[in-house]
Amino acid sequence: MNERVFNFSPGPATLPLPVLQEAQQNLLALPGAGASILEISHRSKTFEQIIAQAEHNIRQLLRLPQEYHVLFLQGGASLQFSQVPMSFLHAPGRYAEYLVTGSWAKRALAEAQREGDVRVVWDGKSDNYRRVPKPGEYETTPGAAYVHFTSNETIQGVQFPSEPEAGRVPLVCDASSDFLSRPIDVRRYGLIYAGAQKNVGPAGVTIVIIRQDLLEQVTDDLPTMLNYKVHVEHRSLYNTPPVFAVYIVLLVTRWLLENIGGLEQMYAINRQKAQMLYDAIDRSEGFYRAHAQPDSRSLMNVTWRLPNEELEAEFVKQAKEAGLHELKGHRSVGGIRASIYNAMPVEGVRALVQFMQHFHQKHA
Amino acid sequence: MNERVFNFSPGPATLPLPVLQEAQQNLLALPGAGASILEISHRSKTFEQIIAQAEHNIRQLLRLPQEYHVLFLQGGASLQFSQVPMSFLHAPGRYAEYLVTGSWAKRALAEAQREGDVRVVWDGKSDNYRRVPKPGEYETTPGAAYVHFTSNETIQGVQFPSEPEAGRVPLVCDASSDFLSRPIDVRRYGLIYAGAQKNVGPAGVTIVIIRQDLLEQVTDDLPTMLNYKVHVEHRSLYNTPPVFAVYIVLLVTRWLLENIGGLEQMYAINRQKAQMLYDAIDRSEGFYRAHAQPDSRSLMNVTWRLPNEELEAEFVKQAKEAGLHELKGHRSVGGIRASIYNAMPVEGVRALVQFMQHFHQKHA
Repeated sequence: MNERVFNFSPGPATLPLPVLQEAQQNLLALPGAGASILEISHRSKTFEQIIAQAEHNIRQLLRLPQEYHVLFLQGGASLQFSQVPMSFLHAPGRYAEYLVTGSWAKRALAEAQREGDVRVVWDGKSDNYRRVPKPGEYETTPGAAYVHFTSNETIQGVQFPSEPEAGRVPLVCDASSDFLSRPIDVRRYGLIYAGAQKNVGPAGVTIVIIRQDLLEQVTDDLPTMLNYKVHVEHRSLYNTPPVFAVYIVLLVTRWLLENIGGLEQMYAINRQKAQMLYDAIDRSEGFYRAHAQPDSRSLMNVTWRLPNEELEAEFVKQAKEAGLHELKGHRSVGGIRASIYNAMPVEGVRALVQFMQHFHQKHA
Repeated sequence: MNERVFNFSPGPATLPLPVLQEAQQNLLALPGAGASILEISHRSKTFEQIIAQAEHNIRQLLRLPQEYHVLFLQGGASLQFSQVPMSFLHAPGRYAEYLVTGSWAKRALAEAQREGDVRVVWDGKSDNYRRVPKPGEYETTPGAAYVHFTSNETIQGVQFPSEPEAGRVPLVCDASSDFLSRPIDVRRYGLIYAGAQKNVGPAGVTIVIIRQDLLEQVTDDLPTMLNYKVHVEHRSLYNTPPVFAVYIVLLVTRWLLENIGGLEQMYAINRQKAQMLYDAIDRSEGFYRAHAQPDSRSLMNVTWRLPNEELEAEFVKQAKEAGLHELKGHRSVGGIRASIYNAMPVEGVRALVQFMQHFHQKHA
């Protein structure tokens, strides 16, 4: 009953086995601390080292310049949807521009519209959110406080192959579902936020990276807990942070550095895994049909349809019996979704490809 | 190196050993789920059962009437300091009354003052926050939206022996450091909030209990994530909740019900533990001096001084060598603080009392 399956959940999602094993081994008492990570004070030297090392690992992985601050907050991307526009749009004359590429971008937009002047510069609705915009397909303006995009849409399975154009305006990115899955052009970002529960940890911690010049623009007329300046000043220890989740982020980022070798290597593995699945779809002679257009296909969430909904339900059911769990697509898109974040091993994807081929042969 | 000590940390704090053992045993794969609690979807049947059972246990422990909703949120009491007044004080003519009994009440007050009309009806400053108000020592008014109090002050070590008077106005309580440590007169509360990391779980989940009539007063002009109505409607699953922390709350509340027998029994044990320490202080002929006045002494955080700061530092150092950790008082009060929440075993308190006696004999 305790056997581990291949878990294609869109998030919370599978974690590296060595991370789970280390957390398990130390769960009654962290070496030298005399207490569990669940029990130690966030003001203890032990935890100060944990959070400092987690930050250090993220800095190293992203090659973050010194003018970027790394925060460990709570509330998920959903709270950031509000905190970002509250921070930058409350002053007169300020506005932001949003690229709308799917369900999560729409949520970010809706919250921003409550807070200030927000302009949609591109919306993929007419294409049913099967793609991201091409360069030149939209225009941003130099006066915008920021340009917001969702680097990967978990539900639709579309992903920006690289950062969108925004001139010299800072990018603000919801990177929840592809954070630390590949190298990024970090200097183009003013702010990055990411719920940890896809690629870098369990649910319960939100990583925010903010550049000094944006930090200085944050309005002070905010509840203290929603003020990035306060969290930077207190190095994420203004109040009790989610200690255990930060600890798991430390273990995952260490795994990325030491077991994988960094983001270039992780990116190569992620491309390989996604390619295996998209090849299986494209070579199925139309039995499997990808949702996303080829140049916008996500490396994290692969979404596709079968000839009819009965076959899709049968696919999900038989896959589960074969130890391939959580493959049902989101109800708004339907079909199948395989989430293959950093920690999904190549063997899991290989098993899914084999299952797809057998299923196709049986039901073609 | 992995030996467990007696951990008197004020929070995050010690957890019941059987809870840690069960979490450890299942950390690679929850029975029947095929994945770790750190990896399962918050939309899975497994987690739906976990969060429903955690809620059920809290309802049973507090004997909550149906008109109360139980939420599992993020951001800690510090975010509630803002969310409460944002919810109830933004409309014209609305005001709230605050009882200020120590450091945490002051923080709650400061955030509320940013949001609306707030009146301090009692402040213990002139007594250096050594006590809570007596009945009749302050007046509340029937027009207040709510009366706010901090049931236990973690830093000063003062606690309301029972709910303060507020006429028919609903009480709003920051119960972070004594939640589920004793029975309460629940119908007097309109809203209770508590960070879990003292008595009921790890850092990273905030429990909010809100009565239906207060819920209906919540303004809709709020960021979605700060709207209690949204979280009630989605049963704490509007966005990804802190899955693991909720799971630990389930295990702790089950331990309270099954191992301890409920809040009456827990209260008896907590009184016994606190009495052992206060007796040791009171019988020391002035060598140890309690910070709190006798009728306001906390059952959760016992605070006291020694004849001088050198002895206090020596006490903390030698105690740690004896396996009694985290006894240093908060810098704002000084001296010693022993936090003896639900999960601190009687044996831990007994060991501390013995150490106190030996230390006194050696240094008197």
